Amino acid sequence: MTQGPLGYQIHPWELRWRGLSISQLERTESTFALSNGHIGIRGTLEEGEPVGLPGTYLNGFYENHELPYAEAGYGYPESGQTVVNVTDGKIIRLLIEDEPLDMRYGTARHHERVLDFRAGTLSRVTEWESPTGRVVRLKSTRLVSFTQRAIAAIRYEVEPIDGQSMQVVAQSDLLANEPIEADRSGDPRVAAALQAPLVGQFAQAEGYRAVLVHQTRNSGLRVAAAMDHEIDVQDGLRTRVHAEEDLGRLTAAAEVAADGKLVITKYLAYGWSAQRSAPALRSQVEAALAGAHQTGWDALLAEQREYLDNFWASADVEIEGDPELQQALRFALFHVLQAGARGETRAIAGKGLTGPGYDGHAFWDTETFVLPLLTYTVPDSARDALRWRHATLPLARERAIQLGQAGAAFPWRSINGAECSAYWPAGTAAFHVSADIADAVARYYNATLDHDFDAECGTEILVETARLWNSLGHHDQHGGFRIDGVTGPDEYSAIVDNNVYTNLMAQRNLREAADACDRNPDRAKALDVTADEVASWRSAADKMLIPYDDDLGVHPQAEGFTEHLDWDFAGTPEEKYPLLLHFPYFDIYRKQVVKQADLVLAMFLRGDAFTPEQKLRNFDYYEARTVRDSSLSACTQAVLAAEVGHLDLAYDYLAEAALTDLHDLHNNVRNGLHMASLAGAWSSAVSGFGGMRDYGGTISFAPRLPAALSGMTFRMVYRGTHFKVSVSRTEATYELLSGAELETTHHGEKLTISEKPVSLAIPELEDRTPPRQPPGREPARRVPLDGNTEANTPR
Amino acid sequence: MTQGPLGYQIHPWELRWRGLSISQLERTESTFALSNGHIGIRGTLEEGEPVGLPGTYLNGFYENHELPYAEAGYGYPESGQTVVNVTDGKIIRLLIEDEPLDMRYGTARHHERVLDFRAGTLSRVTEWESPTGRVVRLKSTRLVSFTQRAIAAIRYEVEPIDGQSMQVVAQSDLLANEPIEADRSGDPRVAAALQAPLVGQFAQAEGYRAVLVHQTRNSGLRVAAAMDHEIDVQDGLRTRVHAEEDLGRLTAAAEVAADGKLVITKYLAYGWSAQRSAPALRSQVEAALAGAHQTGWDALLAEQREYLDNFWASADVEIEGDPELQQALRFALFHVLQAGARGETRAIAGKGLTGPGYDGHAFWDTETFVLPLLTYTVPDSARDALRWRHATLPLARERAIQLGQAGAAFPWRSINGAECSAYWPAGTAAFHVSADIADAVARYYNATLDHDFDAECGTEILVETARLWNSLGHHDQHGGFRIDGVTGPDEYSAIVDNNVYTNLMAQRNLREAADACDRNPDRAKALDVTADEVASWRSAADKMLIPYDDDLGVHPQAEGFTEHLDWDFAGTPEEKYPLLLHFPYFDIYRKQVVKQADLVLAMFLRGDAFTPEQKLRNFDYYEARTVRDSSLSACTQAVLAAEVGHLDLAYDYLAEAALTDLHDLHNNVRNGLHMASLAGAWSSAVSGFGGMRDYGGTISFAPRLPAALSGMTFRMVYRGTHFKVSVSRTEATYELLSGAELETTHHGEKLTISEKPVSLAIPELEDRTPPRQPPGREPARRVPLDGNTEANTPR
Repeated sequence: MTQGPLGYQIHPWELRWRGLSISQLERTESTFALSNGHIGIRGTLEEGEPVGLPGTYLNGFYENHELPYAEAGYGYPESGQTVVNVTDGKIIRLLIEDEPLDMRYGTARHHERVLDFRAGTLSRVTEWESPTGRVVRLKSTRLVSFTQRAIAAIRYEVEPIDGQSMQVVAQSDLLANEPIEADRSGDPRVAAALQAPLVGQFAQAEGYRAVLVHQTRNSGLRVAAAMDHEIDVQDGLRTRVHAEEDLGRLTAAAEVAADGKLVITKYLAYGWSAQRSAPALRSQVEAALAGAHQTGWDALLAEQREYLDNFWASADVEIEGDPELQQALRFALFHVLQAGARGETRAIAGKGLTGPGYDGHAFWDTETFVLPLLTYTVPDSARDALRWRHATLPLARERAIQLGQAGAAFPWRSINGAECSAYWPAGTAAFHVSADIADAVARYYNATLDHDFDAECGTEILVETARLWNSLGHHDQHGGFRIDGVTGPDEYSAIVDNNVYTNLMAQRNLREAADACDRNPDRAKALDVTADEVASWRSAADKMLIPYDDDLGVHPQAEGFTEHLDWDFAGTPEEKYPLLLHFPYFDIYRKQVVKQADLVLAMFLRGDAFTPEQKLRNFDYYEARTVRDSSLSACTQAVLAAEVGHLDLAYDYLAEAALTDLHDLHNNVRNGLHMASLAGAWSSAVSGFGGMRDYGGTISFAPRLPAALSGMTFRMVYRGTHFKVSVSRTEATYELLSGAELETTHHGEKLTISEKPVSLAIPELEDRTPPRQPPGREPARRVPLDGNTEANTPR
Repeated sequence: MTQGPLGYQIHPWELRWRGLSISQLERTESTFALSNGHIGIRGTLEEGEPVGLPGTYLNGFYENHELPYAEAGYGYPESGQTVVNVTDGKIIRLLIEDEPLDMRYGTARHHERVLDFRAGTLSRVTEWESPTGRVVRLKSTRLVSFTQRAIAAIRYEVEPIDGQSMQVVAQSDLLANEPIEADRSGDPRVAAALQAPLVGQFAQAEGYRAVLVHQTRNSGLRVAAAMDHEIDVQDGLRTRVHAEEDLGRLTAAAEVAADGKLVITKYLAYGWSAQRSAPALRSQVEAALAGAHQTGWDALLAEQREYLDNFWASADVEIEGDPELQQALRFALFHVLQAGARGETRAIAGKGLTGPGYDGHAFWDTETFVLPLLTYTVPDSARDALRWRHATLPLARERAIQLGQAGAAFPWRSINGAECSAYWPAGTAAFHVSADIADAVARYYNATLDHDFDAECGTEILVETARLWNSLGHHDQHGGFRIDGVTGPDEYSAIVDNNVYTNLMAQRNLREAADACDRNPDRAKALDVTADEVASWRSAADKMLIPYDDDLGVHPQAEGFTEHLDWDFAGTPEEKYPLLLHFPYFDIYRKQVVKQADLVLAMFLRGDAFTPEQKLRNFDYYEARTVRDSSLSACTQAVLAAEVGHLDLAYDYLAEAALTDLHDLHNNVRNGLHMASLAGAWSSAVSGFGGMRDYGGTISFAPRLPAALSGMTFRMVYRGTHFKVSVSRTEATYELLSGAELETTHHGEKLTISEKPVSLAIPELEDRTPPRQPPGREPARRVPLDGNTEANTPR
């Protein structure tokens, strides 16, 4: 393992941080966050302080706050939702011979933490000398269980290492309404809603156990948290347990022998509900706790590792030639798994459960960037996330009615399914989110042939979103089907006519809905779908208007886009990025400047609608106008760069996507990880250098590596078949791991993936002139670190 | 005079309301408001209650309040401004034999109020029987002086008419921080800013005089109000004067003989300043008061009448065949004069000084609708209003910089010149306001040849707005000059490319700026204008892109407009109007539905850019899509309807514009009068049936009357020449009133207006099929009331 004085260390299967840096704590709290998709706990130190942002989140648990408007309009959402820091159970405070352990004081002789991608744990070793000269070693290991979704656990050890016995007092807490910074969002109303959002309803303690039940003030959601402990120490243990409204505490005092140690195992259980009573929730978490306690620490660890072994067997991506990228890709896969593993009909938020960024909202990020990874690796998690969307259909139907449309209009941002976007040109108008959800449904179905989901949920989502498009669009005087006045993925344009991405995704949506109705005639009938309606969908799809600029030979991102003035990139210094913080929307919207892949994303997700020549010209055209002021861009640019043959550029973009959080490229990792960018790193590898595409149920590959990589192997699941693809500079090898044989193509050549590995040559690529990016907006040129070099540290 | 039981009475020179209707008070407070453009007082009853909205306004006097955003953006204004109800001096409370006079109690045996358009006064006669049976006659007359701009005055008489003497106590107040309704705007922050906005700084009383000085809490503006009195009564007068922080009061108690009366004359003076101290302001209002007192009531009345005689001699419009319309037109002229007469480098707000609507903000309404009337009747007032705009150039330059543009960007809505619009797609993006201001500058110059203004102010405004357009637009790949991503006058579209109105007005702006620089080379040089810059303006103007739909043979309002889906008018019931209260912006913006004349307004103000055939086709096309959810539309539709030959339709629209407030067509007259619609009524008459146009300094006429009218005579001033035009059904007569002879045209035929009247025949008009409006959105068919019919009462 590489070691350096401070910062992340490069290792293929873990993320290790060596040394103490108080100023970096808020970043590592996000990168070291543990989650199973249901519970999320940030990587704070056990002793509670110093801390950047404490954070314990339960998927779907939020508080409401008013959304203010200086000039309100019809249909503006009145209420916002924001994720709440619930009862904090990860705190174990320590008093060493009367001195509180606080890393800001005394001396950290040694400090390191490790996130282990295979064990699913965060471990810590700290050797601390107190201001009065006593020295202890502290070890902790925590997990949020993938197998018992209500459970987290901590093993905590203290031992004197200065040759003398010492008095140790540990306080293990459940702490509600932790103080947080006054104003995270800049909006005093949100801050007010989050100051002490929990109202105590029940508190009880007995033996080594405590339980607290709270309810939010406005949203009325109820949360229960419970803890139990095992304590192992040789001599003189005295304990006291206590509960009050916002605090449950087990105090353990012991005289630890010079060669002895105090070991505390803390089990935590969480539950929340909008409907269940305080006694019911209390019972629920106490039962979960009893189960975890009965399982025991070692068995929890073993279950965790087994779960992850299975995951890596289906999902791992191996990279040869760039150890840091290898680490980053596994870091990405691990965190995306954490975000989605046990969501179980709750949303996968933009930040997962790693921080309060974006108010804890889920966006189109989930379906477009995160679900592809889950669909092809742990498809059940993709299914569960789509079941959440399905559960929100009543709210999406209401919203469509409010907006004067048919079918269902899914929200731009939400926790519970209700629209929370307060700026409609970049929120409500971005109707593509509904097509993105439909796309994810179709992708999941094609990748799994899960007929039960198709009949129960998928068809209904496809039908209701197709209805939305059929009412949003209209046939013009020449018969073309137009979709006017909407906003595409690029948030530096808004309210445009015939955004190519939106129209192509709507086209797929309409066709997939028609196909789903053919597959599920009973379901279609129950949804009042008529043959005429299906015919109108197919007709709208067939007549879909896709603008094209004949003079320039490129697709305008939307009608008129290529007529607009180019942004003055030469006159825009680096400090003026991101543009939206330094220029008014009006000026950004009306010029040719692209925040994030839009037409280029269309060329990925609807690559079947473009010729190779169009892809090359379009890519180069938009490359010169894309500033990547969003973390949702580099991964898509990587995929298309690889497809059109700019392999080294694709490599740069892949690295940017994969390292977004580890290098804190957007300087906001403290608020949580960028799940879409992490998942996008996987797409960059598998769909970029692997060339994996899946259009309408036909999976295909066109692998090709950049100069810096000597090999890449990735694993996937498709229709129950587990297989792996190993790519070298000259050939690719396809090998079945389990399940039935699978037909696919390699650079257009048919092949069958079977138990006998098949190796096929990679065609030569003609030379390409690399495209230009706006000055200063090029991705960092990737120079792979070898295993003996210091890792890049966050800026 | 026509009389009826209740409501407005038809009379050519006055607006009389007979009878008491408490529920109508809030409406008549607006229609009976008095103002000189500097001070405005609503037509409340002297006794203070019952009241709809009390209101005493000083032009430019406002309070600040925070503008909240759930999702803020760069360049959003942080602070709003709202007009403040200042110290109320129009209150004279009355106690009759221990009974407060309150029209809600006792019996109003007779009650009428008269706004006299020639006297410039509001008079009242009330005969009231108290609950205990005593009967008094109350007469009051008020004026806000056109000749002494700081002064208002009230003559107030009380006489017993039940044959017995009575004890009368009158309390004449200066009252600050009057209680107002909690929430006028729906925004609690605005309401909070307006609850007791004034902080007392000085209060003093002596003899019959009192003075109060206050300062606003946030904006820091200071206001002084002072009153003095004359009291005339036969016997036993006792008076007491008193001043406290928010109240100045003269109490006059008298035993009035059975055949006697108590007469109080109250003089009021107002002053405000952002800079002057409390003592200075106190001195200022006391001096003004001394002046008014010295002038005396009768002389103030005489001055007022003389001022108005002069006005009517230059501005009157006589109508034959529709007495109610005659009254409405003079009502309109009178109120527009009140709004603009003595503004003197302050704005003319959308509501004038008649109510708190639109927060007291000025919009493009001023330059586009109000200033034409003033330019051709009292041009000095137009000049003063434009001097206000000139004074705000520093703020407009700052705003342009903030928006990344050159030159000056005038605000969409403001009191002091700073942008106060919180919704940028329908505010900041409506850049046409700057071209509208430039248009008003050019119109004023062409109509006056006022070289001093041209050199001091006009050229600078034209140059800075031309610079704005030159930076907002760009030459596309084919050389055409495009202006992308802006919002035109029609607020049911937003953020569009090449709005025809905007582009044509910008074209004029660029050319007028170039011409102004040619006229004023020194000024141009001082503004750093180079020959290259002027050439670039002319080139941009010459290459201005004006989209045209060849298939339909009409101009799209903006690029792509005619491709959009038509609004489902048939499926939109009446109660769903105005649309913006019942449908989301996104759906309104992307469909062919027009709130207010946009392309049609372009055909009026830039009629020189369209052929007659285009005008006819365009008018019919937009007529079918215009819903008139704005009071800024009917007047323009009237002008173009008349031009293209739909004379009866023009008549309907003229009536709608003229009666907007008297019939309370938008159900909001309580918040103030619609100055633009009132002024627009004048345009409907003079530019509609008079066919007056003024393109680039060439004034022309094409008069033609609708079937219902037998004659119309209007007066105007142009380049110092006063003249009148008398139109009959068959001919028009042009006659010089004073000044030099004037060249013009009549239906394209040249003529010279001279002392000898010239009569010319009106050409025959070929029959036209009337266009269709959206169902239910037709203007009311106008049936003229004869002089013996009851006037229409407000709905």
